[in-house]
Amino acid sequence: MFKRPLITLPIAVILLGCGGLEFRVRLLEIEAGGKPIAVMGEGDARRLGVKSSDRVLIRLGDSEATAILNIASEFPEGVLGAYRELRAKLKLVEGAQIQVEPIGRPESLSYIREKILGERLTPWKIDRIVQDVVEQHLSDVELAAFVTALQIHGMSMEEVEALSWAMVKRGRTLNLGRHPILDKHSVGGVPGDKTTLLVVPIIAASGYTIPKTSSRAITSPAGTADRMEPLCPVDLRLEEILRVVEEVNACIVWGGALDLAPADDLFIRVEYPLSIDPLLLPSIMAKKKAMGSTHMVVDIPTGRGAKIKTMDQAQQLAMDFIELGRRLGIVVECAITEGDQPIGRAVGPALEAREALEALMGNGPPDLIDKAASLAGILFRMFGDENGKEKALSILNSGRALEKMREIIGAQGGDPDVRPEDIPIGERVHEMRADRGGRVLWIDNSAIAQIARAAGAPSDKGAGLILNAKMGDEVDRGDVILRIHAESPQRLEWASSLARSLEPMGIGERVGERMLIREIRAVTPLGPEFILER
Amino acid sequence: MFKRPLITLPIAVILLGCGGLEFRVRLLEIEAGGKPIAVMGEGDARRLGVKSSDRVLIRLGDSEATAILNIASEFPEGVLGAYRELRAKLKLVEGAQIQVEPIGRPESLSYIREKILGERLTPWKIDRIVQDVVEQHLSDVELAAFVTALQIHGMSMEEVEALSWAMVKRGRTLNLGRHPILDKHSVGGVPGDKTTLLVVPIIAASGYTIPKTSSRAITSPAGTADRMEPLCPVDLRLEEILRVVEEVNACIVWGGALDLAPADDLFIRVEYPLSIDPLLLPSIMAKKKAMGSTHMVVDIPTGRGAKIKTMDQAQQLAMDFIELGRRLGIVVECAITEGDQPIGRAVGPALEAREALEALMGNGPPDLIDKAASLAGILFRMFGDENGKEKALSILNSGRALEKMREIIGAQGGDPDVRPEDIPIGERVHEMRADRGGRVLWIDNSAIAQIARAAGAPSDKGAGLILNAKMGDEVDRGDVILRIHAESPQRLEWASSLARSLEPMGIGERVGERMLIREIRAVTPLGPEFILER
Repeated sequence: MFKRPLITLPIAVILLGCGGLEFRVRLLEIEAGGKPIAVMGEGDARRLGVKSSDRVLIRLGDSEATAILNIASEFPEGVLGAYRELRAKLKLVEGAQIQVEPIGRPESLSYIREKILGERLTPWKIDRIVQDVVEQHLSDVELAAFVTALQIHGMSMEEVEALSWAMVKRGRTLNLGRHPILDKHSVGGVPGDKTTLLVVPIIAASGYTIPKTSSRAITSPAGTADRMEPLCPVDLRLEEILRVVEEVNACIVWGGALDLAPADDLFIRVEYPLSIDPLLLPSIMAKKKAMGSTHMVVDIPTGRGAKIKTMDQAQQLAMDFIELGRRLGIVVECAITEGDQPIGRAVGPALEAREALEALMGNGPPDLIDKAASLAGILFRMFGDENGKEKALSILNSGRALEKMREIIGAQGGDPDVRPEDIPIGERVHEMRADRGGRVLWIDNSAIAQIARAAGAPSDKGAGLILNAKMGDEVDRGDVILRIHAESPQRLEWASSLARSLEPMGIGERVGERMLIREIRAVTPLGPEFILER
Repeated sequence: MFKRPLITLPIAVILLGCGGLEFRVRLLEIEAGGKPIAVMGEGDARRLGVKSSDRVLIRLGDSEATAILNIASEFPEGVLGAYRELRAKLKLVEGAQIQVEPIGRPESLSYIREKILGERLTPWKIDRIVQDVVEQHLSDVELAAFVTALQIHGMSMEEVEALSWAMVKRGRTLNLGRHPILDKHSVGGVPGDKTTLLVVPIIAASGYTIPKTSSRAITSPAGTADRMEPLCPVDLRLEEILRVVEEVNACIVWGGALDLAPADDLFIRVEYPLSIDPLLLPSIMAKKKAMGSTHMVVDIPTGRGAKIKTMDQAQQLAMDFIELGRRLGIVVECAITEGDQPIGRAVGPALEAREALEALMGNGPPDLIDKAASLAGILFRMFGDENGKEKALSILNSGRALEKMREIIGAQGGDPDVRPEDIPIGERVHEMRADRGGRVLWIDNSAIAQIARAAGAPSDKGAGLILNAKMGDEVDRGDVILRIHAESPQRLEWASSLARSLEPMGIGERVGERMLIREIRAVTPLGPEFILER
């Protein structure tokens, strides 16, 4: 194994206060993705003794700002290009005279390097990294290296805890002045999982407080925020959430714009292209802590087609959630749930909102009802209700959960009297039929998700699909097994042709009849599928 | 240890041929660092179902190009911003109507991900990665993740070999139609190492061919190309090199613009900010192979102050060089050399050029002479000259090496009759004096390098420093031990104050008298020093 020895010679002084050079500002009418990036030509960079990614201090009168340098091969001499972020920071105008001088790299960069070398980081060092991430002092290259190193080396529980605290510290928090505050989280990965839309009203109907923040889909057809949005606005400000929860004990909102853990959004930007997710645990828990959660159930869907594949993985993740919760002062219990097929029948924002509302009205698919009651039951049991699941079912069956959901919808600015059929769904429909009779032996979550996304979900709210059969159901040849909904003919065509080329559902006479799961050809045009939803 | 299980679900189809959206082009008057980057607003990205870093296919009439997408929060709807690279690729004009549709990620990205997961990559996969690097299909985030993964996991010799071949394949090569072709390389890290300026003319004077390409300094005060430049032009094109070597059997040129291993420049761009260098071995050897080298001596300076710290590290690196050479068809021998103090007395381009010329004229410092003769001797010995070192010394002493050097200088377009005193050096001088008498016990390479860089080296050719004493020399209190040369008063002041705050030279009565090497304070404002020179 050839592994380069790493060379570290701590130096005694960071070169500060070097005489800089004068530049004229050129405003670049574009953002640099949040980072204060400045651009200069190669000649100027040589004169200043700097390279791409080096840091410079920019002085304009009494104000100054740090920038990360990009070097361009064609750029006029004596001119410094300023992206919008830098322009805003220093209130720069076109042609302004500024002084530019090289400065040392942020301290956190050496801690990132330590992590690359496989060292454990102290809480203090992790805090400095998170601070520099949030303040945009690190380039994407540096962030990518950090996230990659975390993925490869892993983190000790001490590091995970420190990262969680650092993320909470650098973000906003919600103070409801109540206790206890309940929460529910799913690690995701199963299409059509609208369980939250039942659990929250069940819990709140029994008098508990549950301010639920959710994500929008990144790689899936719908996140919980996307599912709630056909019913009412979900992009509430923190002050509005406070009011809603005061009023009705609960909310179901989009957590993404609340600045609960701003570092996380910046990490996700580099995790997404790499399809890695080493920060799952601290990211989730930091946001829960920021919302003031004290008791929480974590749903870990497990199965071949889910994000978590094996019981061992699920068990380990559960233990980590519980331990991190303990360290953050949150009582956590986990539920390992069936993840081999979609929950219920609907996949896609509006179709799922309809299905959830129908379930609250007493007409829900059995798997959705059972899952919601089980998770709510675990929360009830934390407070002494040994028959938590029965309690949840009775709240659901009594209509009190529906009533509570209507209160939440109203408080968030939606129509409390909304009926399932009021929610618009994609009117372009393609029906996929069984090419043989038999039993549904398996459903391919990944294919289902791709077809729904091809149809337009989640950005087209009405797009998605309905499964007319679930695992174990009997179908006849020619029966409709899948109904695709789209908002445009183009999207419908695209989703339909994808549905034909994939095999979303396996039908056979009996289990064991069709043992081939997937054929691997010599050259496989495959990319990894990756689920990034928090 | 908390380590996220990684989720891979190969998908059956990469979403191609989705109906795209129409955009108008806005030309951004700036480069994106070589990559074909396009920018669109958040709303458009949502409509198209894409995220930052996703790839899109851009169509303009019959031509099309792939771009990497950046998402901007403030960007007009229906407009696609095109950096210069993309504009050039598609010959875009302002306001042009184009079609944009999402496409899958490059295949090489899944191989990068495999490397992150710790897998060995096949030669074919490595070749695809290098191809996509050279063709700029990978973002900086993806490149950074790859380089970080290589640093952490290391590479098998098979991978190193494949990477070397892939780099050669994607670059230009020099075909001299001669055999053998000799070469010399130093892994670097010792200031003032102008050995190449002696070895090349010694070898060429005896009739061998040695087309030497060198680097410019990245983190050091001078690379060999910087040292040669005060004597003659070094940025020759490949055709010119061919002519020079035909004429005089040798050259000493800058290899950076020859496109010998274009992947390397792109890797260096992300390695530099991270201060990691996992590609040292394949990068160096790919460039040697591209120059057609058949026999090569590799200098590995070793010592506390050098890039390689221990004999074990040096030994391992030497074995790797030899083995990789064998696989590439290059006979390699290595020399582990003293790396604890600068070579000779001069540090900085012009000062070193003077010293090298003086050495060729018979007036060189003993360490420089010995090192050059030893390395040249190893090359001679490869061809049967058992007394290679003596042969080298006799060529040097006879003046034949000087004569050859003047031929090389002339052939490259310099003044063949140049005298040392013709080479301009920085006229601003600061003398640092010994604050006590005694022996020089140690010299801090890192401090020397920093002081020389502070004085302006390598961009100010005349800047640098002269060591008036080397390890073991006796000095009296008040003797000049260091003379700093700069081209501007500002740089001189900066370098002088740095020299005062660092301790570049340790003076004491006898070895063992001053045992403290470095004091570590509670809060250390230290960054890692890092040597990146190939």
